[in-house]
Amino acid sequence: MNALEAIMGAAKPGTLYGIGVGPGDARLMTLRAAGLIRTVDTISYFAKAGNDSNSRQVAAPLIAQGRNELPLYYPVTTELPVADAGYKSQIRDFYEGAAASIAERLRAGESVGLLAEGDPFFYGSFMHMWRRLTADFPVEVVSGVTGFSGCSARAGAPLTWGDDILTVLPGTLDEAALTRRLQETDAAVIMKVGRNLAKIRRAVSAANLIGRAIYVERGAMAGERIAPLAEVQDDAAAPYFSMILIPGQGRRL
Amino acid sequence: MNALEAIMGAAKPGTLYGIGVGPGDARLMTLRAAGLIRTVDTISYFAKAGNDSNSRQVAAPLIAQGRNELPLYYPVTTELPVADAGYKSQIRDFYEGAAASIAERLRAGESVGLLAEGDPFFYGSFMHMWRRLTADFPVEVVSGVTGFSGCSARAGAPLTWGDDILTVLPGTLDEAALTRRLQETDAAVIMKVGRNLAKIRRAVSAANLIGRAIYVERGAMAGERIAPLAEVQDDAAAPYFSMILIPGQGRRL
Repeated sequence: MNALEAIMGAAKPGTLYGIGVGPGDARLMTLRAAGLIRTVDTISYFAKAGNDSNSRQVAAPLIAQGRNELPLYYPVTTELPVADAGYKSQIRDFYEGAAASIAERLRAGESVGLLAEGDPFFYGSFMHMWRRLTADFPVEVVSGVTGFSGCSARAGAPLTWGDDILTVLPGTLDEAALTRRLQETDAAVIMKVGRNLAKIRRAVSAANLIGRAIYVERGAMAGERIAPLAEVQDDAAAPYFSMILIPGQGRRL
Repeated sequence: MNALEAIMGAAKPGTLYGIGVGPGDARLMTLRAAGLIRTVDTISYFAKAGNDSNSRQVAAPLIAQGRNELPLYYPVTTELPVADAGYKSQIRDFYEGAAASIAERLRAGESVGLLAEGDPFFYGSFMHMWRRLTADFPVEVVSGVTGFSGCSARAGAPLTWGDDILTVLPGTLDEAALTRRLQETDAAVIMKVGRNLAKIRRAVSAANLIGRAIYVERGAMAGERIAPLAEVQDDAAAPYFSMILIPGQGRRL
């Protein structure tokens, strides 16, 4: 800030809202999310380059034509493994740029609503913006219904009973680790299925849980598919929005 | 059904809605929950005898005077341990009676909205009604924001990053089991704190996680209290609506 700007005074900065839109069904947005989506100055969301944003699709019924939008497009990284330094540095640069774009709007006094699938603080990309911006701007996190809650309702499968232990596992774990974790829990959610489907099924079978495992693809969204994991044949690739639920068997009273 | 009833035909049975009201803040109810709370024929909820229902309190701004309500009061069981056969049989009788009361309304063609704290399929008492009624009546489960999501937002503590493994643990586990589970996970939520607070703190300390553990009492509700677990002194009894969060430290990009 130079001397002239200091005398003029800056606008009160806008608030960044991390808005969980829930698992996919627009009706599972919260009242707070819906209110903010209709009133923030700018709607922002992450999307893969060349794709629609899933979170924006969920919120679409509440976004009137002509609203200010700030799409944040991930760089194309399909050829690079997640552990690769090149991948990490590309994504880090992308997040830095995205945070700078958001900060610019906030500094101008605009409120920005960054949409997040499920809950913003549960494996959400929003967290990478939150940690860059929370020290300098007012931030409100609007919790959302997680994907696993939406999927268990759609599958008609209560997830945890009584004193069940629940373990949430990324499908990226190696097969031995997955098997061991599954053997030691009462109930499980396996996320990030995608290309890991065949490995996950082997681990679930090795843990003797194949009879209880439910595959849910695009739960609570258009194109939903729910089936026993044992009957899912197309090992090659499950879509990103798929998960596996292993409901607990705790206290039934 | 006798011959006369068969000719007369029965009313179409009403639908049972399991309505998640979220973690406590009325604004974190979903649009679907809010719509149903305003329109079902009967609002039902569990409560301790002599107490207000917490889920009804959350939904109260949407419940007009004069609505049909069906409160379901738990029997007083404070003197009996959960594992006790007498406790189990009292609770089972209570659930049987509660399901019968709901079934009577459904059979008469009324819709019943049974409120549930958090998400109905995540450690919810609703599940005990669901398993008794789902074969005979139409049921819709309306997912809600879980208590741990609401608490992590209120605490400003993102729960899981990147490929973090999350373990949800009941505070009723014994100290050695709690310690071991905590040592083996990246992030944790400990529910059912109540009288287990002192034991849980010992387990968290033994697992070298005391520096990361956050105590949240009545998160997203009136009377909220958030503090580092290390600073919480009153070991005697935490309220039922308290939990401990141990945020993950996974991939920051």
